[in-house]
Amino acid sequence: MGSTLAPHLAYGLATAELVALADPERSRAATLAQSLGVADVYDNTEALLARADIEAVVIATPTGNHVDAIRAAAAAGKHIFSEKPLALTLESCDAAIAAVNAAGVTLQVGFMRRFDPSYLVAKKQIDAGAIGQPVMFKSLSRDPRRTSLEFARRENGGGMILDMGVHDFDLARWLMGSEVERVFSEGGCLAFPELREVGDIDNALINMRFANGAIGNVDLSRNAVYGYDIQTEVLGTEGSLRIGRLQHTSAVLLNQAGVTHDALPYFIERFADAYAAEIRAFIGAIAAGQAPPVSGEDARTATAIGIAATRSLDEQRPVLLSEVFH
Amino acid sequence: MGSTLAPHLAYGLATAELVALADPERSRAATLAQSLGVADVYDNTEALLARADIEAVVIATPTGNHVDAIRAAAAAGKHIFSEKPLALTLESCDAAIAAVNAAGVTLQVGFMRRFDPSYLVAKKQIDAGAIGQPVMFKSLSRDPRRTSLEFARRENGGGMILDMGVHDFDLARWLMGSEVERVFSEGGCLAFPELREVGDIDNALINMRFANGAIGNVDLSRNAVYGYDIQTEVLGTEGSLRIGRLQHTSAVLLNQAGVTHDALPYFIERFADAYAAEIRAFIGAIAAGQAPPVSGEDARTATAIGIAATRSLDEQRPVLLSEVFH
Amino acid sequence: MGSTLAPHLAYGLATAELVALADPERSRAATLAQSLGVADVYDNTEALLARADIEAVVIATPTGNHVDAIRAAAAAGKHIFSEKPLALTLESCDAAIAAVNAAGVTLQVGFMRRFDPSYLVAKKQIDAGAIGQPVMFKSLSRDPRRTSLEFARRENGGGMILDMGVHDFDLARWLMGSEVERVFSEGGCLAFPELREVGDIDNALINMRFANGAIGNVDLSRNAVYGYDIQTEVLGTEGSLRIGRLQHTSAVLLNQAGVTHDALPYFIERFADAYAAEIRAFIGAIAAGQAPPVSGEDARTATAIGIAATRSLDEQRPVLLSEVFH
Amino acid sequence: MGSTLAPHLAYGLATAELVALADPERSRAATLAQSLGVADVYDNTEALLARADIEAVVIATPTGNHVDAIRAAAAAGKHIFSEKPLALTLESCDAAIAAVNAAGVTLQVGFMRRFDPSYLVAKKQIDAGAIGQPVMFKSLSRDPRRTSLEFARRENGGGMILDMGVHDFDLARWLMGSEVERVFSEGGCLAFPELREVGDIDNALINMRFANGAIGNVDLSRNAVYGYDIQTEVLGTEGSLRIGRLQHTSAVLLNQAGVTHDALPYFIERFADAYAAEIRAFIGAIAAGQAPPVSGEDARTATAIGIAATRSLDEQRPVLLSEVFH
Repeated sequence: MGSTLAPHLAYGLATAELVALADPERSRAATLAQSLGVADVYDNTEALLARADIEAVVIATPTGNHVDAIRAAAAAGKHIFSEKPLALTLESCDAAIAAVNAAGVTLQVGFMRRFDPSYLVAKKQIDAGAIGQPVMFKSLSRDPRRTSLEFARRENGGGMILDMGVHDFDLARWLMGSEVERVFSEGGCLAFPELREVGDIDNALINMRFANGAIGNVDLSRNAVYGYDIQTEVLGTEGSLRIGRLQHTSAVLLNQAGVTHDALPYFIERFADAYAAEIRAFIGAIAAGQAPPVSGEDARTATAIGIAATRSLDEQRPVLLSEVFH
Repeated sequence: MGSTLAPHLAYGLATAELVALADPERSRAATLAQSLGVADVYDNTEALLARADIEAVVIATPTGNHVDAIRAAAAAGKHIFSEKPLALTLESCDAAIAAVNAAGVTLQVGFMRRFDPSYLVAKKQIDAGAIGQPVMFKSLSRDPRRTSLEFARRENGGGMILDMGVHDFDLARWLMGSEVERVFSEGGCLAFPELREVGDIDNALINMRFANGAIGNVDLSRNAVYGYDIQTEVLGTEGSLRIGRLQHTSAVLLNQAGVTHDALPYFIERFADAYAAEIRAFIGAIAAGQAPPVSGEDARTATAIGIAATRSLDEQRPVLLSEVFH
Repeated sequence: MGSTLAPHLAYGLATAELVALADPERSRAATLAQSLGVADVYDNTEALLARADIEAVVIATPTGNHVDAIRAAAAAGKHIFSEKPLALTLESCDAAIAAVNAAGVTLQVGFMRRFDPSYLVAKKQIDAGAIGQPVMFKSLSRDPRRTSLEFARRENGGGMILDMGVHDFDLARWLMGSEVERVFSEGGCLAFPELREVGDIDNALINMRFANGAIGNVDLSRNAVYGYDIQTEVLGTEGSLRIGRLQHTSAVLLNQAGVTHDALPYFIERFADAYAAEIRAFIGAIAAGQAPPVSGEDARTATAIGIAATRSLDEQRPVLLSEVFH
Repeated sequence: MGSTLAPHLAYGLATAELVALADPERSRAATLAQSLGVADVYDNTEALLARADIEAVVIATPTGNHVDAIRAAAAAGKHIFSEKPLALTLESCDAAIAAVNAAGVTLQVGFMRRFDPSYLVAKKQIDAGAIGQPVMFKSLSRDPRRTSLEFARRENGGGMILDMGVHDFDLARWLMGSEVERVFSEGGCLAFPELREVGDIDNALINMRFANGAIGNVDLSRNAVYGYDIQTEVLGTEGSLRIGRLQHTSAVLLNQAGVTHDALPYFIERFADAYAAEIRAFIGAIAAGQAPPVSGEDARTATAIGIAATRSLDEQRPVLLSEVFH
C-alpha cells in the first residue's frame, strides 16, 4: 500500500510535498524514492519522525503495527493517515485515538471507497432521497486470490472477515446512515485448505441488522479467480442504487465461443482515483484545520463490526455489537 | 397462476389437450376457457375429477388448499402438477406425498426456474465443472410490490420467506448439489407498515450453511419498485456462474438525464418460457412413465427450509434443518 | 418462414383458425399440420384457394414467387399476408399491389420488426419527442452464416442488400419519418469466396440521405459468426434511442478467461414475439376492416431502396431513389 | 489540450522533466505552471525554443499553427510532439515532415487512442488472429456539444470531418492493416443551424473502401447530448472486436423510471490514461533513439482521408484517395 499511495503524494498535490520514505527494507524505499524523485530514505521511522520539517505521515505498515506507529507519530506532532484496518483490537483503536487526541493532530483512516467517484455519486443520491428510505445493504468484496499464509493469521491481518470486510462495514454505516447492531456470519475454508492450518477462512457471508431496523449482508471471498470484484447496493423504499464495475478494458471479443470481456485484475486498477482523492482530502483537511472525512472513531466502529462478525463465526450465533463494545 | 399456465396447456402440446377448467368463480373460468378454446368449465373440482377421460390436473389454488386438492386428485387417479409451495407445513407435504404414492400417480411441483433456459445452461455448466467446486450460493428474489394483505397472513401464503424464498431454496439444493443444514434470517417490515398488522415482513436476508460446508444467502424484498428482479449466482473455486436479467425490452434511451432502460414488470414476462417448459416436462414424464423432474420430496425439502428460515426470524437465532424435520 | 409463422396462426388467435397448409413438398406440410392440429394439407395452392371457407392466406414462398401467389390469392378474394421482400422488382410490386387493390382485399407484408416490443417502445418515444428531431439512422443486420448459394443468386433472393437490408430500409422510413432520397453502397465478397461465383456479396455498408436532410447507414454482414445481431439507433438533437440485444440466455460465466455470455443464435429466438404480433395485427386489421399496419406501398418503397442500393454497389456511385422509381 | 497533457509531462516521467510553458496568454500559462510546479513561463515560443537545455516540446496550438510551430521547433533541434490533426492541408503536412527530417528530430502526433488500454488489447487480439481476417471497420466519434463557431470554420479547425474524424481515420488504418482507398460522405448541418453560417456541419457518415477490399464507416456527430461517445468495431471472418464504453461512474439508479446510469462527459475522462501513455511513449522513443509509434506520415495519411471525405461531402460523389494525394 505504501507504493500505491506514494505516487499520489509525490504528484499533483499543490500544497504538499513528499520528502521522505521509511522502510525497514531500505533498498525497497530507495528504489521507490528514486522513481518518484523523493529526496530522503530511512530504514526506521524514528529518524523520519525526528524531522521538524515533516508535518504529516502516511502509515502503511502491517495492521498489527499501526498503533505503535500512530502513537509515535502523534507524539512527534505529525498529522497521520493510517491504512485500514486501524487495529486488530478495540483496545488498540482506543489507544491510537487517545494518542491522536492528546497530541491534537489529525488522524484519517484509509477507507478509500468513500472517495471513489461512483460511491460518492451514490451517497449523494441516497442523501437526496433518490431511493426513499434505505432498507437493505448488500456488499460484495472478492479477491482474485488468497493472501499469504503469514498475513492470514489473525494475529497479523485480523482474519479475512476483519481484513476484507472492514471496507464493507464502513460503507454500511456511511451509506445506510444507521449503526450496525447485530451480525451473524457463515463462513468456511472452502477453496484453499492451507488457510485452515493458519486459522483463516476464504469465504464468508455476514448478515447484519442496523439500529433503525434495516438489514444487510456482506459477501467476502478469496477465490474470485475471475477478477477483483467489488459491488455494493443500497435498496430503499423508492428504488435502489448499485455501485460497482467488474470490466477492466472496454474491449469485447465476439466469436463462436460467445461474447467475452476482461475483468479488473486488482484493487490498484479499481481504486486508483479513490486513493488519490483520499490523500488530497487528508492534505486538504490538515490545511483547512478541519476534521478528516474518515475519523479514528469511524475506523474503530468498522473494526468493532469486524470483530463481532469474526466472533459470530467462531461461536456460530448472532453477536450484538454491544457485546463487543463492552 | 391458473391463467398463466393454461395457455401452455392449451397450445403446443402434441400429446395432451386441455379439456376443462374449474374455478369456484365460474365466470372467470368461462372467460378463460372461451379465449383458449377449452370445452368445459366447472365451479368445483369434484365434477372435473369425476371425468374418466381426464388423466392429469394442474392445481393452482391458494397454497393452503393444495393438499386437499392433491388428495382428491390422487384419489381420482389423476397425475398432478401443483403450484408452489407444496404446502404450508411439513405435515401437509407428507400427507400430499403419501396420497400421491398410495395412488401411484405422478406429482410435479411448480419450481419453474429449473426450466428457464438460463438456469438450465448454468446447471449444465456447473455439472460440467466449469466453475470447479461450488462454495457459495447467492440468490435474490424481489417483487415490484407487496402482495395483498390477505395473502400476506402466514396461514394463507406462509409469509414472505416461505412464499417467495421457496424458489431460491429449491435452486440452492439443485445448483449446489448439497442439502441446506442451517439457516439464519434477518428481516423486517421496512417498506409497507400495513404488513406488520397481518404478521408479515417485506425484506429478508437468509444466511445458509450447506451439508458440505458451502455457504449461501437469499435476498428477498417486496419493494423492488424498479421491477421484477431475480438473480442467482453460484461461486466456485474456479469461477462463477451468474443467472438473471432485469432489462425487459431492448430499447435504451440516451439523453441528458443519462442512459436509461426499462426493467421486467413481473414474473410472467420473466418466466414465460419456463412455465411452458415445466408443463411440457410434466406431460412428457407422464407419457414416458418417468419420475417428474421436480418431485414432491423436492418441494417438501424446500418448504422445510422456508419453515426453518421463518422460525429463525421469529426466534432470532440460527435454526438447524434437523429441528424442523423432527 | 412458413413453419415459423404457422404456430402463431394455430395458437392464440381468438378470432381466426388455421385450417390448411399447402406445400409442393406435401410431406413437409403434413408433418407440420399434424404437430399443430391443422386439419387439411395440400400440395398446391389452387386447391387451397378454391375453398370458400378460407378468408385469408399467409404466403411464405420464395421471394420470386410472391407476386404470382398474391395475384392468385387476390383473385380468389383472400386477404393476404406476404413474407418480405414483397418482390424482386418494382414492376412485380406494382403488379401485386394492383391485384390486391382490384380485388379489394387486405395485403400486409412481413416487416416483423415493427411489431417487436423494443422497436415499438422506441417508435413511441421518438414520436413523443424524447430525442428531439431525428438526424441520424443507424442499423445493423448480421447473420451468423451465409445463405445457400442457390438463394444467394439475385434472381432468387434479390442479393444480400435487398434480402437482408429490406428490414432496415423499412425501419429507416418508419422511425425517421422521412423518405430515403439517395443511397451509396460499399460492399464486397469478403468472407465466403464461393458467393462471388453466384454474384452475391457478404458484407455491405449503405449510406443514406433522407428527404428532410437526415442521414443514415445500414450495416449488413453474413459472417457474424458470434450470433444473430440486429441493432438500430436513431440519434436526435436531444438524445438517442438504441434498440437491440445480442445476449440470448442470461447465464454468464466468469472465470480466468474473462466474463462470457452467449449470443442469440438466429431470428426465431430474437423475433418470436414480433412474428406472433404481426399475425395478430393482420387478423385484427381484417376483422376491423382497417388498413394493415404495413402496406404493399411500404413494401414497395423498401424494395426500391434495396434496388437502388444494389445498383449503387454495381455502379460505384450514389444512386437517387428517383432513378429507380422512374 | 495543453493543460490536458501538461500534468502527464509534469508527473510520473522518470527520465524527463517539464521545465517551461509558453502561451500568448501568459497568465494562463502562469496559472498552470504554478499548479504543476513548472519553473518557467513564456508568452512566445521563440524564447522557449532558444533554451539549449530543452530537448523536446509539445505543440498544442490551433491546428492552423502546427506547421509553423513544428518548423521552428525542428530548426531549434527539438524533438516534437504535435497535437492532431498535423495540419489542414497535405502541403502543410509535407512541409512539417520535411522540416523534421531535415533537422533529424523525432515527430510524434497525438493519436492518443492508439495508447488507450482497450484499443491496445483489441489491436493485439486482431494481430493474433482472434477475429480471422478483418472485413469491416466501424467507428463512431460523437461530441456532447458543438465546437465554437470560430473553430468550426474550415480554415481554423478543418471542419468537422477532418477535426473529429481524423482519429477514426487513423484507427482505420492501424486496426485494419490496409490503406483507405475511397471515401463517400453523407452529412449535414442538422442540429446547430448556426454552424451553417460558418460553413460547417454537425453530423456525418463516411463510407470507406480499403485497398484490400474491406469496407468501413465512420459516424461523427456534435449532438450526442447524452455524453462523449467513442466506439469502434472491427468485424472479421471469425469474430468481432468492439472497443468503447459510455458509462462514466459505476453508480446505477433503479427506480420506477427504469434503470439509469451516467455517461462520460468528455474526452479527458475517457482518455486520461491514453494521454499519459502517449507522452511516455514519446519520451521513451526519444530516449531510445527509436521511431515514434505514431509518425508524421501516419498523420499525413489520416489528414488525407479527412480531406478526401470533406471533398466527397462537397462534391456529393465518392472520392479516391489517389485524387487527394496527387
